[in-house]
Amino acid sequence: MQTIPDGSITSPQGFMAGAAYAAIKTAGEGQRDVGLLVSERPCAVAGVFTQNKFRAAPVHWCQERVASRRAQAIVVNSGNANAGTGDQGYQDTAQMAVVAAEHLGLDRHDILVASTGVIGVPMPMEKVRQGIVSAHPTRDGAGQFVRAMMTTDTFPKTVAAPVMLRSGHGVIGGAAKGAGMIHPNMATLLSFITTDLAVEPHLLQHALKEAADAAFNMITIDGDTSTNDTLLLLANGAAGNPEIREGTPDAHTFQESLNAVCIHLAKMVARDGEGATKLIEVRAEGAQTLADARAAARTVAASSLFKAAVYGRDPNWGRILAAAGRSGAELDPAKADVFVGDICLMRSGQPQPFDHAAARAAMSGDEVSFRIDLNLGQFQATAWGCDLTEEYVRINAEYTT
Amino acid sequence: MQTIPDGSITSPQGFMAGAAYAAIKTAGEGQRDVGLLVSERPCAVAGVFTQNKFRAAPVHWCQERVASRRAQAIVVNSGNANAGTGDQGYQDTAQMAVVAAEHLGLDRHDILVASTGVIGVPMPMEKVRQGIVSAHPTRDGAGQFVRAMMTTDTFPKTVAAPVMLRSGHGVIGGAAKGAGMIHPNMATLLSFITTDLAVEPHLLQHALKEAADAAFNMITIDGDTSTNDTLLLLANGAAGNPEIREGTPDAHTFQESLNAVCIHLAKMVARDGEGATKLIEVRAEGAQTLADARAAARTVAASSLFKAAVYGRDPNWGRILAAAGRSGAELDPAKADVFVGDICLMRSGQPQPFDHAAARAAMSGDEVSFRIDLNLGQFQATAWGCDLTEEYVRINAEYTT
Repeated sequence: MQTIPDGSITSPQGFMAGAAYAAIKTAGEGQRDVGLLVSERPCAVAGVFTQNKFRAAPVHWCQERVASRRAQAIVVNSGNANAGTGDQGYQDTAQMAVVAAEHLGLDRHDILVASTGVIGVPMPMEKVRQGIVSAHPTRDGAGQFVRAMMTTDTFPKTVAAPVMLRSGHGVIGGAAKGAGMIHPNMATLLSFITTDLAVEPHLLQHALKEAADAAFNMITIDGDTSTNDTLLLLANGAAGNPEIREGTPDAHTFQESLNAVCIHLAKMVARDGEGATKLIEVRAEGAQTLADARAAARTVAASSLFKAAVYGRDPNWGRILAAAGRSGAELDPAKADVFVGDICLMRSGQPQPFDHAAARAAMSGDEVSFRIDLNLGQFQATAWGCDLTEEYVRINAEYTT
Repeated sequence: MQTIPDGSITSPQGFMAGAAYAAIKTAGEGQRDVGLLVSERPCAVAGVFTQNKFRAAPVHWCQERVASRRAQAIVVNSGNANAGTGDQGYQDTAQMAVVAAEHLGLDRHDILVASTGVIGVPMPMEKVRQGIVSAHPTRDGAGQFVRAMMTTDTFPKTVAAPVMLRSGHGVIGGAAKGAGMIHPNMATLLSFITTDLAVEPHLLQHALKEAADAAFNMITIDGDTSTNDTLLLLANGAAGNPEIREGTPDAHTFQESLNAVCIHLAKMVARDGEGATKLIEVRAEGAQTLADARAAARTVAASSLFKAAVYGRDPNWGRILAAAGRSGAELDPAKADVFVGDICLMRSGQPQPFDHAAARAAMSGDEVSFRIDLNLGQFQATAWGCDLTEEYVRINAEYTT
């Protein structure tokens, strides 16, 4: 994928972003905890949300808004997830939309809301309100906005890529936050994607779901699904192209670009997993179905035993095959091949002699790739994760409540 | 459950056990790595096996033998799992049965085989053969047999309990091994249950499956399912009772006792999880179905974030509810109550003020219990696990290949 230098959610035309510090989270240099992303014109909107039955108030709000297929701005805060907060939580989310709408001169029904941070604590609405009205979106504000999304991410995660269609050119931009711990909390994934291309709303939703399945749904930090996971896509049509419609070559090109942007962000999230020292890529090939390929790749990437082995640079094919074997994917141990980098560890179910020093070297960088070929069919999928370290345990065992 | 002091698999009448050291695993004082368990008469047999598609050779062998509903002895070895060993592995398993049969004067089709240890390494058959013929089962040999099952278990796991039926008395005994790591391996659970009661074979299989679902299938160390997991039950009828039949009060009593024995062993396995400092009990109540109750309890017990929080003595109800929320169980966050010990952390979805010092104290022993009441129905289930510690990562990251 060709990316735009320093690209982000305001790289597409007609999007502005800004942020403020409202003391919802602890102060620090240049700290931000309330952000606004706004389009100069109404957008088609798509959304994908946590499957957890314990969902935060802003997730309920966004699901209602996305159903209308139209939105124009996103207000985000970090430091408080507004989860486990009951009816008051929902009212606070609605109030955030009202304040943002008045501040931006929009209708509250066109405002999406996302929150991340502590669970079970009422939103400090006076601070939040002050934060919203102090944020002034500009074409240069994406960096500040992304800071306002972050919890314990160690680096900001943004990207933008040009999209060359037969019918015109446009840009897709994106930002994400990943696994962060806030008192007494769990990881939350938030990601916002923007594009200046005009896209038919139903296609937009299908495309986002497909991109989520290929990207965010293929990463795993620790197997825990958050109450707040939210992926939103705004398409404002500022590029002037004729609306992209389902089944056309341009729809295919848009899907490919959207997948690439989402995978780029998802890999950044995986790399920044709590305590992680390595990005792990697991590719499953030769599966009978796409679902099988995804299940096998993701189950391996999520295995605690496998993740610990990668941390220890142990080319432990037994753990890889055992994880694939319990993934639900059709698998014949007598046919499977397993590789680390280009080094074959197992072929047709038989352990292969290999150069242990070379295998260890292939696991010594900050990116390690594994491949399992099931040799049963034509489907393939890639999952991303990170290694399991003592630091993960330390971060998450820390007494916080 | 009333237990028999120092009870084990030879507490029921007519069972003998013995073991030998054959240098399959590293030597140590009193080391054993090949064991024999034999009944003085043929037994009805039941078995429950790993669901992993990557299954070790002895698992295939036992599945065939259990289908015949009859067996008389078990040969077990530690130090080599005979997994990922192809056709030769299956022939080696069959050969183990032949050698044990000749040594014991039985038919090879009446011999069950179980192995645990390294994956992908051919069985050292000369050593194994020598070990089998050196083992001489006696009424006192259960302790040696259990040593021969162990890999890195830090303590042996055995129990026996009397069973008082309307039609007679008998004993159920059991032994288990849990999560141990052997070069380049994963955890394996082996458990053997014996009883001198006569039980109709189909009932025996149903009862064992039900006990496995309530006990071994409700424990979790790290979410990885082994290639070798094997649970076998031998019933030799030496107690002289009329055969227990399905649907009778005695069948019910037998089931209760079998569940209790299996739960006792399963909890010992959970307590001895790699790196663990605490046994965690998670009880889900008020579920709409038994499946929901089990899914909720087990998903919470298996959550890495929750396990790390318990290690840190953090009464983190957010992680508990979030794990239950992604378990697939029907759940309404506005109705759920969460407790640690007797301390209510959340009621009807609302965080409760609680004494943090008391909650921390409730998590300071080597057993910690949590309860989540979904308040949606009448079903309940209990799961057991252990905390996640830096030591778990160290054990499993160690370079071993």
